[in-house]
Amino acid sequence: MPLLVNKIPSNYAVSIHYDRRLYKQDIAGSVAHARMLARQGIIADGEAESIVRGLEAIREEIEAGAFLWREELEDVHMNVERRLFDKIGDVAGKLHTARSRNDQVALDMRLYTREAITDTLSGIHALRRALVEKAEANARVVMPGYTHVQRAQPVLFAHHMLAYFEMLGRDAERFQQAYRRADVMPLGSGALAGVPYPIDRESVARELGFSAITANSMDAVSDRDFLLDFHSAAATCMVHLSRFAEELVLWSSDEFAFIRLGDDYTTGSSMMPQKRNPDFAEIARGKTGRVFGHLVALLTVLKGLPLTYNRDLQEDKEGFFDTVDVLLPTLQVMAAMVATIELHRENLRQAAESSNVLATDIADYLVARGMPFRQAHRIVSELSSHAVRKGKKLHELPLETYCRFSPLFDESVLGISVLSSIEARDVPGGTAFAQVERAIGRAKAILETDSAPQGPND
Amino acid sequence: MPLLVNKIPSNYAVSIHYDRRLYKQDIAGSVAHARMLARQGIIADGEAESIVRGLEAIREEIEAGAFLWREELEDVHMNVERRLFDKIGDVAGKLHTARSRNDQVALDMRLYTREAITDTLSGIHALRRALVEKAEANARVVMPGYTHVQRAQPVLFAHHMLAYFEMLGRDAERFQQAYRRADVMPLGSGALAGVPYPIDRESVARELGFSAITANSMDAVSDRDFLLDFHSAAATCMVHLSRFAEELVLWSSDEFAFIRLGDDYTTGSSMMPQKRNPDFAEIARGKTGRVFGHLVALLTVLKGLPLTYNRDLQEDKEGFFDTVDVLLPTLQVMAAMVATIELHRENLRQAAESSNVLATDIADYLVARGMPFRQAHRIVSELSSHAVRKGKKLHELPLETYCRFSPLFDESVLGISVLSSIEARDVPGGTAFAQVERAIGRAKAILETDSAPQGPND
Amino acid sequence: MPLLVNKIPSNYAVSIHYDRRLYKQDIAGSVAHARMLARQGIIADGEAESIVRGLEAIREEIEAGAFLWREELEDVHMNVERRLFDKIGDVAGKLHTARSRNDQVALDMRLYTREAITDTLSGIHALRRALVEKAEANARVVMPGYTHVQRAQPVLFAHHMLAYFEMLGRDAERFQQAYRRADVMPLGSGALAGVPYPIDRESVARELGFSAITANSMDAVSDRDFLLDFHSAAATCMVHLSRFAEELVLWSSDEFAFIRLGDDYTTGSSMMPQKRNPDFAEIARGKTGRVFGHLVALLTVLKGLPLTYNRDLQEDKEGFFDTVDVLLPTLQVMAAMVATIELHRENLRQAAESSNVLATDIADYLVARGMPFRQAHRIVSELSSHAVRKGKKLHELPLETYCRFSPLFDESVLGISVLSSIEARDVPGGTAFAQVERAIGRAKAILETDSAPQGPND
Amino acid sequence: MPLLVNKIPSNYAVSIHYDRRLYKQDIAGSVAHARMLARQGIIADGEAESIVRGLEAIREEIEAGAFLWREELEDVHMNVERRLFDKIGDVAGKLHTARSRNDQVALDMRLYTREAITDTLSGIHALRRALVEKAEANARVVMPGYTHVQRAQPVLFAHHMLAYFEMLGRDAERFQQAYRRADVMPLGSGALAGVPYPIDRESVARELGFSAITANSMDAVSDRDFLLDFHSAAATCMVHLSRFAEELVLWSSDEFAFIRLGDDYTTGSSMMPQKRNPDFAEIARGKTGRVFGHLVALLTVLKGLPLTYNRDLQEDKEGFFDTVDVLLPTLQVMAAMVATIELHRENLRQAAESSNVLATDIADYLVARGMPFRQAHRIVSELSSHAVRKGKKLHELPLETYCRFSPLFDESVLGISVLSSIEARDVPGGTAFAQVERAIGRAKAILETDSAPQGPND
Repeated sequence: MPLLVNKIPSNYAVSIHYDRRLYKQDIAGSVAHARMLARQGIIADGEAESIVRGLEAIREEIEAGAFLWREELEDVHMNVERRLFDKIGDVAGKLHTARSRNDQVALDMRLYTREAITDTLSGIHALRRALVEKAEANARVVMPGYTHVQRAQPVLFAHHMLAYFEMLGRDAERFQQAYRRADVMPLGSGALAGVPYPIDRESVARELGFSAITANSMDAVSDRDFLLDFHSAAATCMVHLSRFAEELVLWSSDEFAFIRLGDDYTTGSSMMPQKRNPDFAEIARGKTGRVFGHLVALLTVLKGLPLTYNRDLQEDKEGFFDTVDVLLPTLQVMAAMVATIELHRENLRQAAESSNVLATDIADYLVARGMPFRQAHRIVSELSSHAVRKGKKLHELPLETYCRFSPLFDESVLGISVLSSIEARDVPGGTAFAQVERAIGRAKAILETDSAPQGPND
Repeated sequence: MPLLVNKIPSNYAVSIHYDRRLYKQDIAGSVAHARMLARQGIIADGEAESIVRGLEAIREEIEAGAFLWREELEDVHMNVERRLFDKIGDVAGKLHTARSRNDQVALDMRLYTREAITDTLSGIHALRRALVEKAEANARVVMPGYTHVQRAQPVLFAHHMLAYFEMLGRDAERFQQAYRRADVMPLGSGALAGVPYPIDRESVARELGFSAITANSMDAVSDRDFLLDFHSAAATCMVHLSRFAEELVLWSSDEFAFIRLGDDYTTGSSMMPQKRNPDFAEIARGKTGRVFGHLVALLTVLKGLPLTYNRDLQEDKEGFFDTVDVLLPTLQVMAAMVATIELHRENLRQAAESSNVLATDIADYLVARGMPFRQAHRIVSELSSHAVRKGKKLHELPLETYCRFSPLFDESVLGISVLSSIEARDVPGGTAFAQVERAIGRAKAILETDSAPQGPND
Repeated sequence: MPLLVNKIPSNYAVSIHYDRRLYKQDIAGSVAHARMLARQGIIADGEAESIVRGLEAIREEIEAGAFLWREELEDVHMNVERRLFDKIGDVAGKLHTARSRNDQVALDMRLYTREAITDTLSGIHALRRALVEKAEANARVVMPGYTHVQRAQPVLFAHHMLAYFEMLGRDAERFQQAYRRADVMPLGSGALAGVPYPIDRESVARELGFSAITANSMDAVSDRDFLLDFHSAAATCMVHLSRFAEELVLWSSDEFAFIRLGDDYTTGSSMMPQKRNPDFAEIARGKTGRVFGHLVALLTVLKGLPLTYNRDLQEDKEGFFDTVDVLLPTLQVMAAMVATIELHRENLRQAAESSNVLATDIADYLVARGMPFRQAHRIVSELSSHAVRKGKKLHELPLETYCRFSPLFDESVLGISVLSSIEARDVPGGTAFAQVERAIGRAKAILETDSAPQGPND
Repeated sequence: MPLLVNKIPSNYAVSIHYDRRLYKQDIAGSVAHARMLARQGIIADGEAESIVRGLEAIREEIEAGAFLWREELEDVHMNVERRLFDKIGDVAGKLHTARSRNDQVALDMRLYTREAITDTLSGIHALRRALVEKAEANARVVMPGYTHVQRAQPVLFAHHMLAYFEMLGRDAERFQQAYRRADVMPLGSGALAGVPYPIDRESVARELGFSAITANSMDAVSDRDFLLDFHSAAATCMVHLSRFAEELVLWSSDEFAFIRLGDDYTTGSSMMPQKRNPDFAEIARGKTGRVFGHLVALLTVLKGLPLTYNRDLQEDKEGFFDTVDVLLPTLQVMAAMVATIELHRENLRQAAESSNVLATDIADYLVARGMPFRQAHRIVSELSSHAVRKGKKLHELPLETYCRFSPLFDESVLGISVLSSIEARDVPGGTAFAQVERAIGRAKAILETDSAPQGPND
């Protein structure tokens, strides 16, 4: 029973169900535009005042839930405009002097993007803070470092947390750069060619807190680079969050049993109270897909589009809004979830002490005594094979055995341990306690400086 | 002012705002399950009756808008279940015998996908019909065929329309194949391992109109291939629609001026009444992006996911629903818009007669008289250059000139025209009138057979 | 030091470095075309013979490595054509009668796609066989089934393997359907409008083993759906392989320690002989990315492209060839790797016996005695909590404890075990021994029928 | 006949066919590492000298084409290492002190990325220069500005060119930011945990021209953000190039007939000498697909990958190299092609003068006389409808007609023309002659400053 097929969708071109979200930006832009028109003598002061008062009343209506959104008016701009006529009469028509829908939409999206980035930076900051706090609170906890999901070398849990601190720092930088590209004022571009009025674009930019004005009107109305920048930065950030989520899922498994996530971030089976499904980490990982998808969608929309405005550009919004709605909560959830991590330290330690992980340290021991690295590597390899044949771990072999493989060994080799291995990695960026302590200090200083993350130009 | 950052989103895992859309499928599945449990003696007949009556009452409540959806219950399944307890008491708990959330969700999505495909097939059918009708109504209209957006050879407008008829025929086939893969009943797979009750899966499948049951419980609860199939088919279909939309945009331009789209599918500038922006075609073209994006999103979600159910799979729904919500209206809009196309026949004809497009026919003329094709090609090339130098079109050259270039020319060469060119392409699939007439006939027959496009197994 | 910037790339439009790969298809298509031209009297028999002999000699030259590919001729078609002139003189020019580059390219790609699919089907068949053999050889090995990477219920290892058998069966079906859409002969479409010669398209189709001819010349030269079909099927198949690869990586970890992959499919660290990095599984998982990417690339190329041929379509080849080059070896590697899997049965069994996984069986026990499922669920939940408080597993609790929670328990509850749990899932698709044995039998029968997987129409 | 199915691919893990491209970076990194080891006393000065001489000899061998690449050694690193042993014996083994394959690969890719960006910046610079030169050489050429591919308002051709200048300026900024993130030195991170030697990471960074060292070893070996940055910037840049390519294709059509592209950038049909297929623009547009695809591929590879190194990361290279190989030539081809554009000025002018495009100017005329914009808009709308009914263009109406619609009109309205319209848009970013002249001047100054585009830190 095909329900829909003879109905032609009446609302195919309608965007009001999602672009009403831009009401605040739309009104702010109109207010700034009206004031400038009056300053420049293009409209009378009284007219501007009337327009501004009308717009502010409309904003209040919207925020009070008293505004009637009308689908037949299609978008937020027409809804606000029509209401302004209701409220102040024909003078409302003067607001549209020296402005077109095309530069108005571009302005609204840039204003919104700036706010979205500011919020995102706060979310990143919160997660970075949670990582540093967790690192500091567990500063001496040892765990295996993995390559290929195989234990490779012992590291500090704090060092592992700080790896994500670094990734998120790059994310913040990327969003700040996206901010700067969004932070350019397009009004005055008209439909595509500029406007034939003596407007003052710079003053509008100043009033709306923009750092610059767009340099070419045709570019200004067809440019959505600032959204591509946001999407690209979001996709990279979700890569990082998905990697972390994957680790949280693995660490929560019966097999790893490294961590316990807080009750609010797992769903138990009531029948299996020990079961703690890491649902929130899984959802975070899963949401990576839609963020990648929205990036692809916008790239597709823009590919091969001739200048200047084409209605395809209406499709720049929903994916963007959804990315905003996914990214910020994911950052918040991850930050809150990190705070709830409890470590099963004993499991972490035991895993870190599995014998393999010290083999490179033993090779490095020989190198320190003058043997070329590749030769040391070969000898430890033979020693390991010997240990496997004997059913022992490397550190359970007696000194005599070591010495049979190389005369460079003496009893100091028996001092090689997970802790000595960690201490030895005492280079900038390494996992030695001192290095990690310093890294935590530096991280805290960064968070401090960055403590009011309100966007690059505030 | 970061508004959101200290609020941990309480609804991160909630899906009720989109999965309530599955209520009909969810209830139908539960009804079939309850009846089977009774038939198998797993629950009493009276219990089943009570459950079924309760579920049907809930469906009515929902459809009457009287159902209170509760976000704290997270999803459609728990909302329905809780309401059933309210209505019929503890016996409601028996519904969940021999079933888990995992196979229930898989069932609901398969039921929904089948309906979405049925609707899509109707939409494709409607557009194919509109294309054939437009072709038939303009069966002798000539236009240039293009390669590289350069006029190449004359074709019939009807032939061009039928190219899209073919593409959409493949789309229909692809959706029918996707239907068959969705049309497999997963219930009875339990959480992942099957269920320890003497259920009758085949009878549930029959009751719900499924052609088969799933063969492996672990696969059944983690399989989303049927959604990938839908997304892939949708992406390919949107490729076709975007190509058509692009052509409608070009043909509507002042430069081509080949067609006039109906008022409902263009937005004029009120100031420029002649201006007819093809907004609907542009929106259709733009919406291609989100369909590609949702495909990428689902592929990303599934990539590298271990068996069986992981919460990431919750992310299978919103993109899918949006694809459904985009594809069907786009098909409908295109069908309705095609019906409004008015041809500027004179412009089409003039464009088709630009001299170049007959050069290949002149070469073929020589070949028909025994000259190897490549040599004929060379001679026509020289002839064309000569014509360009003289400022003439090929068909304006006198016979003597032709004969200077080859003795094979006689006055019959002067009979080469746009119409003769078209007539000459009298091979299956070619643009000759007879071939196109036959193709229209075949197309109508296909639509006839296919006139009740309710999904493959209805 | 910008090395490249003043050099304009001379070979930007050249495709010979990748499209030479089509030489066999190109020559086969030309041979069939020449023979048909002679049969139809369009060229003389002797001319056709000369052309065919020339082409076959060229094929031999190419296969002997004696052919000089010339970049300035840009593509495989011109390279072969020019060489044919060298070999047989001007009659070579007759080959191009009633054919254009556009339908020739379409033909070559369809011929190639058919072969690629045939090979892919063989690869899928080989992997399915390996899975069934591994399942059969370990028919009674028990392991935990997972949801959320948390142990949930015991299953048979064979059941888990057969989940992949099912996925790959759908992949095969999808490729067969793609085959049928590729299996349509486009020659005779000319540049876009058909050809003005009395050709016999059906006979060319028969000679080249095609099932049908294309129905519309404009569609035929601009259609790349058959490649989208291949890419979509490949992307879905890689989803399956990436999921399996992920499981192999996890199962190879120290923490799971479920399997040992053969030496050829791991790279050890020579220093840590126990370390067995599952590199091949990781590469397989990683290669998923490029297959998704090539799908996106082709969708992007096609989006919004007006009819008929545009040079953008040249971009249909490299990504496709790379997908072919990735997919088949990945299937082969996976098949060979599966054969080397050794199970650590004891680890699998111990993991399967962790107490949680029997909780649902205990609830089902109560349901079987008449309790509503949700109530049974609640009681087992309380029982589990009690066990956790006592530090016991469920099956270590004495019968008296059970009875305190419900009078429906008797000593038969103590018989619930991993094996009884598995046996109980005795529904079609379930993990019970009998069901899995039957599934193995069915799988073998499928492979048997399908034993000569040479493509749908052979 | 499935050719390949029983052959297990022996080279599935081999990367030498593409990563040999990193030889220069690999050797440069090793030289810097060896010198540092000697400076720090970790190896002897003579050993370092021997290693450096050996490596330089190997580089010369490679560049002379005399190096035998061995597939069985799998990658560039092992090929170079093995050859070094051949040349200098066991001391070669000392090079690998305090270094692992993981940080070595990360280093090589960062070095290569820096060079790729430097080249890309040169390519962008060249195209921007070509745009400015073309703008300046045609500074007073008028054309229609389009929205919805409908003529909307007259603009200067130069203004249109400068829109692309702006887009490419953002591209350059984006690549410079990507450069800075690539410009961080990872060596010293070891396999994942840092190295147990007293190395001097800062001095290695200085020697290799890096601005900073990585701050966390686990991040350093698993981070591929710098490649995501490159891919994202490349995708956005290709969006711009595809838009320009689309316009060049349209403008080259018979219907627009605005431009003539140079012979080197079109392929004619020899039979239709006037036909000039814009193949290079089409290929550029088509190549957008693969760049998007490679971005998706890398995102997919990285999604959900646990720390630190996993073999999936090997898949970071081929797509990246291909993006480099596509982007730079595309920029070069576009730059060279732009230089060949010849304008059909008369066609451009006529198109710009089609009456519609002045309607907004007439409305603005009324607004300038005090009428609210929306009312002016309505009146011009009525006037236009009247003109259409009369079969006239707006500027062909007599003054009396104007005055019937509004008393504000006087004869000055007859002075509204394409040129007056352009002159009137005299705001920053507008299309007025003075504004565009100033924009050209600014663009030239930017190119001047930026004249040695060798990467941010040179």
